[in-house]
Amino acid sequence: MNENNPYVHGLDANEANYTPLTPLTFLERSAAVYPDRIATLHGPLARSWGETYQRCRRLAGALHARGVGPGDTVAVVSPNLPEMFELHFAVPMSGGVLNTINTRLDAETIAFMLQHGEAKWLFVDREFSAVIERALAMMPVRPTVVDIDDPQFQGGDLIGGLSYEQLIADGDPEFVWANPGNEWDAISLNYTSGTTGNPKGVVYHHRGAYLNAVSNALVWNMVRHPVYLWTLPMFHCNGWCFPWTIAAMSGTSVSLRQVRADAVFDAIRGHGVTHFCGAPIVLNTLVNAADELKHGISHQVRVMTAGAAPPAAVIEGMERMGFEVTHVYGLTETYGPAIGCAWQSEWDQRDAAAKATLKARQGVRYPMLESVMVADPETMEPVPRDGLTIGEIFMRGNIVMKGYLKNPSATNEAFAGGWFHTGDLAVWHPDGYVEIKDRSKDIIISGGENISSIEVEDTLYRHPEVLEAAVVARPDEKWGETPCAFVALKEGSAATEADIISFCRQQMAHFKAPKTVVFGPLPKTSTGKIQKFQLRGQARELD
Amino acid sequence: MNENNPYVHGLDANEANYTPLTPLTFLERSAAVYPDRIATLHGPLARSWGETYQRCRRLAGALHARGVGPGDTVAVVSPNLPEMFELHFAVPMSGGVLNTINTRLDAETIAFMLQHGEAKWLFVDREFSAVIERALAMMPVRPTVVDIDDPQFQGGDLIGGLSYEQLIADGDPEFVWANPGNEWDAISLNYTSGTTGNPKGVVYHHRGAYLNAVSNALVWNMVRHPVYLWTLPMFHCNGWCFPWTIAAMSGTSVSLRQVRADAVFDAIRGHGVTHFCGAPIVLNTLVNAADELKHGISHQVRVMTAGAAPPAAVIEGMERMGFEVTHVYGLTETYGPAIGCAWQSEWDQRDAAAKATLKARQGVRYPMLESVMVADPETMEPVPRDGLTIGEIFMRGNIVMKGYLKNPSATNEAFAGGWFHTGDLAVWHPDGYVEIKDRSKDIIISGGENISSIEVEDTLYRHPEVLEAAVVARPDEKWGETPCAFVALKEGSAATEADIISFCRQQMAHFKAPKTVVFGPLPKTSTGKIQKFQLRGQARELD
Repeated sequence: MNENNPYVHGLDANEANYTPLTPLTFLERSAAVYPDRIATLHGPLARSWGETYQRCRRLAGALHARGVGPGDTVAVVSPNLPEMFELHFAVPMSGGVLNTINTRLDAETIAFMLQHGEAKWLFVDREFSAVIERALAMMPVRPTVVDIDDPQFQGGDLIGGLSYEQLIADGDPEFVWANPGNEWDAISLNYTSGTTGNPKGVVYHHRGAYLNAVSNALVWNMVRHPVYLWTLPMFHCNGWCFPWTIAAMSGTSVSLRQVRADAVFDAIRGHGVTHFCGAPIVLNTLVNAADELKHGISHQVRVMTAGAAPPAAVIEGMERMGFEVTHVYGLTETYGPAIGCAWQSEWDQRDAAAKATLKARQGVRYPMLESVMVADPETMEPVPRDGLTIGEIFMRGNIVMKGYLKNPSATNEAFAGGWFHTGDLAVWHPDGYVEIKDRSKDIIISGGENISSIEVEDTLYRHPEVLEAAVVARPDEKWGETPCAFVALKEGSAATEADIISFCRQQMAHFKAPKTVVFGPLPKTSTGKIQKFQLRGQARELD
Repeated sequence: MNENNPYVHGLDANEANYTPLTPLTFLERSAAVYPDRIATLHGPLARSWGETYQRCRRLAGALHARGVGPGDTVAVVSPNLPEMFELHFAVPMSGGVLNTINTRLDAETIAFMLQHGEAKWLFVDREFSAVIERALAMMPVRPTVVDIDDPQFQGGDLIGGLSYEQLIADGDPEFVWANPGNEWDAISLNYTSGTTGNPKGVVYHHRGAYLNAVSNALVWNMVRHPVYLWTLPMFHCNGWCFPWTIAAMSGTSVSLRQVRADAVFDAIRGHGVTHFCGAPIVLNTLVNAADELKHGISHQVRVMTAGAAPPAAVIEGMERMGFEVTHVYGLTETYGPAIGCAWQSEWDQRDAAAKATLKARQGVRYPMLESVMVADPETMEPVPRDGLTIGEIFMRGNIVMKGYLKNPSATNEAFAGGWFHTGDLAVWHPDGYVEIKDRSKDIIISGGENISSIEVEDTLYRHPEVLEAAVVARPDEKWGETPCAFVALKEGSAATEADIISFCRQQMAHFKAPKTVVFGPLPKTSTGKIQKFQLRGQARELD
C-alpha cells in the first residue's frame, strides 16, 4: 500500500454508503413505487407488486419463525406458477437458499439432490407429488413438505402437513427481512443435468443474481414494465435470473403450466406479452404451429433463445412471424446466459438467410461478464480469431458461480487456471464473435477429422421436411466414428434415408454428411434439450 | 457463523468468478463489440470506440510510464470535449484518480483544490489557461501541466511543457491496464461548490461509478446506442456518471463547448441527439428560444433535469415542444442523481398542468440506491407520509460517496446515524414520493412560519412575463424574515413590483407572497444554479 495515498484514510464502507448487492431490493422497490401494478398473472389470478411483496414477507417470516436461516436449503418442485416466482424472493428473504428442482426427473435423482443439498424444507405442486413421495421414501432424513395447491390443476395428492397458503397466513406481514450479511452469500442452488455421474450443485450468490438480472435487461434493450411469459422453466438456472429481472424492471410475470403453441400464442395476444425465452425446440414448435393460432398479434414480441445452437432456419422462421430473436449462450454455471449475439446495424442490409446465420453465432460477452476467450484447453493460449480453429470457451467475471456445493475437486477443475472451463468447443471469428461448434463430448471424430454435430444438424434443419434433428457419433470399424442422424419428419413427409443423406452431401463436405439416418420422435429433457446421451446409446446399438 | 452451513466451504472468490466492478470494462467492451461505431463527436471530428479505447490505453500508458499510480490525483480544467470524456477512462486506467474542476471558479479556489487534492498532473484547455496560470502562481508545489489544444477554440495560451496529443503519441497502444485492486478504490474526486467554508472533496469509487452508470440507463429507459449531448458539464459529478453510462450502452458522446439554444437545437437536429441533461435554467432557455430554432426535429428527445426543483411551467413548456422530461434529484455526494420521479401510467389521464406538477416532485429511489427516507434530523424518526410535514432527506446505499477527502469530521457528520444527510428539506407524500421544499439554509422563517422559497418561486414562474425568479429571506424587524423575490422579466415586459406581488397573493397564502421584488438578471453558477448566497447578500443590503 502506498502510504502517501490520501484516498485510503477515513473513507471506509459504512451503513450509509455500502449495502450488499441483492435482487431482493428490486422487489421492495417495485412494491414501494408501483404497488398496484400487476406482478404475477396465472389464469384468472392477478396479484399486484404490493400483494406479492407482502406475501413474500409473510412467507419469509413464517419460514424464519420455523427455523429457516442462513445456509438452510429450501427446495421446490413446481411448474412456472406465481408461487414459484414468490419463492425466488421469500426464501432468500428468510435467509435460506432456494433449490429449484427439475420437474421431469426420476425419484432417485430427486432423492439424491434433496439429500446432497441437505434440503430442510420442500415445496411441492400436486402434479409432482407422486414422484416426490417415491423420492421421500428413499430418504432416511426427510425435509418438511409444504403443498402448493394450484386450483388450476386437477389431480395429484396433497402430501405435506401444511399448505403454501397456510404458511403465508401464519407469517408476519411486517417481518423485517435483512439483506444478506455478505453479497457473496448463497441465494440459490441449481443442480446441473449432467449426463454422466452425479448431478453437481451449482451455487449462486446475491451479487451475481443482482448483476445478471440487470445484465438481462441491458442485453435485451428491455425498458420498464415488460410483460414476460414463462416458457422457460424457472427451475432452469432460476429462469436465467428473470424473476429478478422482472422485479428490477417492475414488469409482469405470466405463468404457463405447459408450453403448448396455442397457450403461448393466446398469452401473447391476451396479456400483451413483450418478452419470452425458449430453447430452439420451443421456437421450432411455434414456427411450425398452425397459422390460425398466430392471428391477431400486432405488437413487438422479443424472444431470447439459447441452449443448443438454434438452427438459422428456426431464427429465420421466427423473424418472418415478426418476433425479434436475440440469441444468447450460457450455462448453469454462469447464471444462465452470459454471452449474446450483439446485433450490428450494418447487418440490417443483409438478406434474411445471412442475418439468421450471423444471429446463430453465440456472440460476445454480456456487459456484466468481464471476459471471454476461446483457447486451447491444454495451454490456455487463445486460438487465432480466424473463424476456423476450434478451442474451448473460457469465461471470467461476476456472473460465474461460486462453485459446486460440497465438491471442491469439481470446483477446482472448473476454475483451473483462473478461468471457468465451459466444456464447449467453438471458433473465434475475426469480429470477436464466438461460434459454438460442439460440446466437447458431442464432437464426432471420423477418419481423424473433427465433425461438428451442430453443423450437420444445421444442414438437416434446412431440409424442408425435417421437423427436428440430432446428430451423434456412431462407432465404426473403418472410420472410428461416423455421423448418425436422428430425424423427426414433418407430418405427411415421406422422405427416405437416401433423400436426407443426398440433401446433406449437396451442401457440405461428404465426410460430414450422415452415414445413417434414423426416423422417429427425439427424446428431450424438460427444458427442450435433445438428450444426446440416449441417442448415443441407440447409435451404439444399431447393427 | 453456522458451522453446519454447507455454503461457506470451498466456494470462495477467485480470478474466474470475481472481478472488481469498474466502468472501465464498459469501454473495453464497446471497443471490442462496436469498434467502428462513433464514440465521440466534436464539430467535424468523429472518433470510433476502437480509436477511443486505443487513445485511452495510450494515454493511461503514458501517465503510468511517468509515475502515475494508485492514489495519484490527475486534475483537469476543460469544457465538455472528447478529451474530457477520454480522461474519465484513461486516468483510472493508469491507476490515478480523476479530479475534474469547475471551469468557472476563481484562481484562488482552484489553487485550494489542486493543493488539497494533491494533484500531480493537471490537464488544461486553452480557454482556461490564464486563470490556471494565476492559480499555479499561488502554489508552492505545482502539478505537471498538460495542454489540451482544441483547434475549434481560438485564443488562450499553451502553458504546459507537453500536449495531450504528445502524451497519446508517446503512450503504448498495448498498455495493459489493470482493473482496480478493489472496487472500493477511488476513481474520481469532485469538489462541492460549497457556499460557505472551503470546498469539500467528494470521493467516488469504481463500484459506485459502475452502478450509477447502469442506474442512469435503467431509470431513463435508455436502450443501446443513445446519442447523448453534453449540456451538463462533465466537471459536475463526472457528468452525473454519464461518460460511463454512454460506454455501457455503446452510445455517442456529442461535445458542446457552450450551451446556447441555437447550438443545442442544431446538435439535436444534426446528430439525432436522443438524450441530454440540463438544469431547469437550461430548459427554460430552450423553452423561451425563438421558434425558428426549433424546426425540423421530429424524433423523440429525452431530457433529464435536476438541480433546483424545476418549476412545473418549465416542464410543461418542454413537453409541449415534444421533449420527454425525466425529473431527478441528487447531490455531488450521491454520484449525481439518485432519486427520480418514476412515472405512473395512471397519470397519463391528467391534464398537462397536473402532469407537470406531479413530475416536479423529486420522486423515489433509483433502483441502485437502496434506501431513502424523510426524517426529523434530530431524532432520525421518519416523518409521516402526509405531504405536509417537513423533514430532511436521508439516503443509504451503493451510490453514496466514499466520503470527503482528508476531512474525517465532515465525513462523520455526513454519515451520522448510518444515513447520508442531504441537508435538503422535503415532505413525503402518501405515495412515497419525496418533494423538496428547500435547502435547510434556504428556508424563510417569517413570523414563526416556515416559507418554502421553492414554493414562492414556482408561483412566480407561473406569471406569464417572468423569465427567471429566485426567492431568499430578507431580514425584517417585525417578522424576523420576509420573502424577497429577484426576478428577470421576459423581453418587453413592463410588470411592476405591485403586479408581481398581487399575482402571488392571488395564488398562495398571503404571508408567503414576496414583500419585496427586485428586477434584473440573476447571478448563476456554471451549472446554471442561481447563486442564492449572492442574492441573500443583496437582500440584506436593501434598505
